[in-house]
Amino acid sequence: MKPDPVLGVPQQAAPTGSPLLVVGSLALDTIETQSRRREEVLGGAACYASFAASFFAPVRLVGVVGSDFPSDHEALLRSRGIDLAGLELASGRTFRWAGRYAADFNNRTTLDTQLNVFETFRPKLPPAYADSAFVFLANIDPVLQSEVLGQVRRPRFVACDTMNFWIGGKRTELVRVLERVNMVLLNDEEARQLSGKDNLPAAANLIRAMGPSAVVIKRGDAGALFFCEEGVFAAPAFPLERVVDPTGAGDSFAGGCMGWLARTGDISPAGIRTALVVGSVLASFCVEDFSLDRFRSLDEAAIRARCAAFAELVRFEAIRF
Amino acid sequence: MKPDPVLGVPQQAAPTGSPLLVVGSLALDTIETQSRRREEVLGGAACYASFAASFFAPVRLVGVVGSDFPSDHEALLRSRGIDLAGLELASGRTFRWAGRYAADFNNRTTLDTQLNVFETFRPKLPPAYADSAFVFLANIDPVLQSEVLGQVRRPRFVACDTMNFWIGGKRTELVRVLERVNMVLLNDEEARQLSGKDNLPAAANLIRAMGPSAVVIKRGDAGALFFCEEGVFAAPAFPLERVVDPTGAGDSFAGGCMGWLARTGDISPAGIRTALVVGSVLASFCVEDFSLDRFRSLDEAAIRARCAAFAELVRFEAIRF
Repeated sequence: MKPDPVLGVPQQAAPTGSPLLVVGSLALDTIETQSRRREEVLGGAACYASFAASFFAPVRLVGVVGSDFPSDHEALLRSRGIDLAGLELASGRTFRWAGRYAADFNNRTTLDTQLNVFETFRPKLPPAYADSAFVFLANIDPVLQSEVLGQVRRPRFVACDTMNFWIGGKRTELVRVLERVNMVLLNDEEARQLSGKDNLPAAANLIRAMGPSAVVIKRGDAGALFFCEEGVFAAPAFPLERVVDPTGAGDSFAGGCMGWLARTGDISPAGIRTALVVGSVLASFCVEDFSLDRFRSLDEAAIRARCAAFAELVRFEAIRF
Repeated sequence: MKPDPVLGVPQQAAPTGSPLLVVGSLALDTIETQSRRREEVLGGAACYASFAASFFAPVRLVGVVGSDFPSDHEALLRSRGIDLAGLELASGRTFRWAGRYAADFNNRTTLDTQLNVFETFRPKLPPAYADSAFVFLANIDPVLQSEVLGQVRRPRFVACDTMNFWIGGKRTELVRVLERVNMVLLNDEEARQLSGKDNLPAAANLIRAMGPSAVVIKRGDAGALFFCEEGVFAAPAFPLERVVDPTGAGDSFAGGCMGWLARTGDISPAGIRTALVVGSVLASFCVEDFSLDRFRSLDEAAIRARCAAFAELVRFEAIRF
């Protein structure tokens, strides 16, 4: 594993496993935490998800950037073997997001959103992507999520994310997407909004009835809950003494999870449990620095070590009395 | 296990293990949830903790009630073998608390607090209690917590709880208590207030430096984190589709944990991990009904079944790649 001479990213063997198609936003983010501020750094749900997944499976990225998108960012994604044949370069400005985090990082305020090239984006998949076995529809307009699904022949496992904006504004279109996915990942407030239920297990059951057999509720530093017919799985967030920037944690979680599923091909409840732990591990790396900066130096050894630490985090002896 | 003819509580063999001394409040609570309201039901931190612990170890309860404390409540505690020799009956009214819960149960508003007989309470332990090996100082004035500790000869393991009111108002006295305890249990906001740190692992480390080698941060339905020199343990809350009343969940958690420690005598980090899972299980029963109502019909078989369900909740296969 010698570092790339230009980017400093460790070069690794291309991962085996089925190809994972990721569609969603690539963005230039401006982030304010209590102590620091970063301007126009690489971000976007699809970007975080693709990068996290790329440690485990070949990734195909579908999205759009503007003519102002720095070529370094493209090179960074390519350096991890991410296939950018589906990345459209549009004239105009790249999608931008700006936000500010509260001291405990559990609340953030969106300061600015500029859709820019995303306003007119219609995803057109390269023909070679039609055979993608695993698909992650990151948070974008559910109409676009459907359009992507329409261009994939017979995916084996599809997951989607969404947000309050679409649950409120394009509910019918979102419900149509949910009917076609195997798994949905959303945060607790979104689960409550979508289901109309305050209780999370009740919300998850109601959402499962809308289509997806697997429902994952993301709760930030409170971890995640996975509901399926077999039962419930609780994965804590990996506790870190130093969180720099939580942007992209949920997308890295989803990407790590989907990458693992594509790698192993095990989409059983037990396989999804393991994948969610891998997702938690990727999310824990993501928040250790701004943008995708922590991922740049990440290698398999570090991922493996944290997976072991995660197992230790939740270990307890059998209770007998 | 035949039910008690008067109270309907299953009669069980007295638990083995070291005696656990519990000091704290007994209360008459008025609870409002979104759908229901209960007036002047049995409550109080020491009451929940004692009852939860009584499934595992002999419990000695130190506290005070007024002359209006219903004899049925006393009989209920006695029915679980809880030793009430240390329960003072004062003239005056019993401590009262009233609160209202938000729809998601994660926020509550205190509507009323009447200290009543607690205003002048000074704990006087029966001489036989001086040999208590395990001590749980539930949330009361740290001055009283110290007075109790002063009357126990050589406790093997002492834990305490506290609240924002004492952290703000009697910090010096609280710090003196912390210097003498093995474990402190407090919620995330209290941990932040006590340590001045927003990050929970950082807060826990700072609190450990104040004395207790074990710090447990309770996070309601987000579970609990246990920090000690050996590392971190994360226990999720057991997800329930129907929560009726979360009052006393944290105290039942602490009581179940301390009862288990007193039963097994294993105060190693691994022993505490197991005890915290038992505490989570007891807390999960507590919230299924108002007051101690769910505990009335609880038996060892139900506890055992939920301990097994808890192990299943967090189970995942080893990650190898």
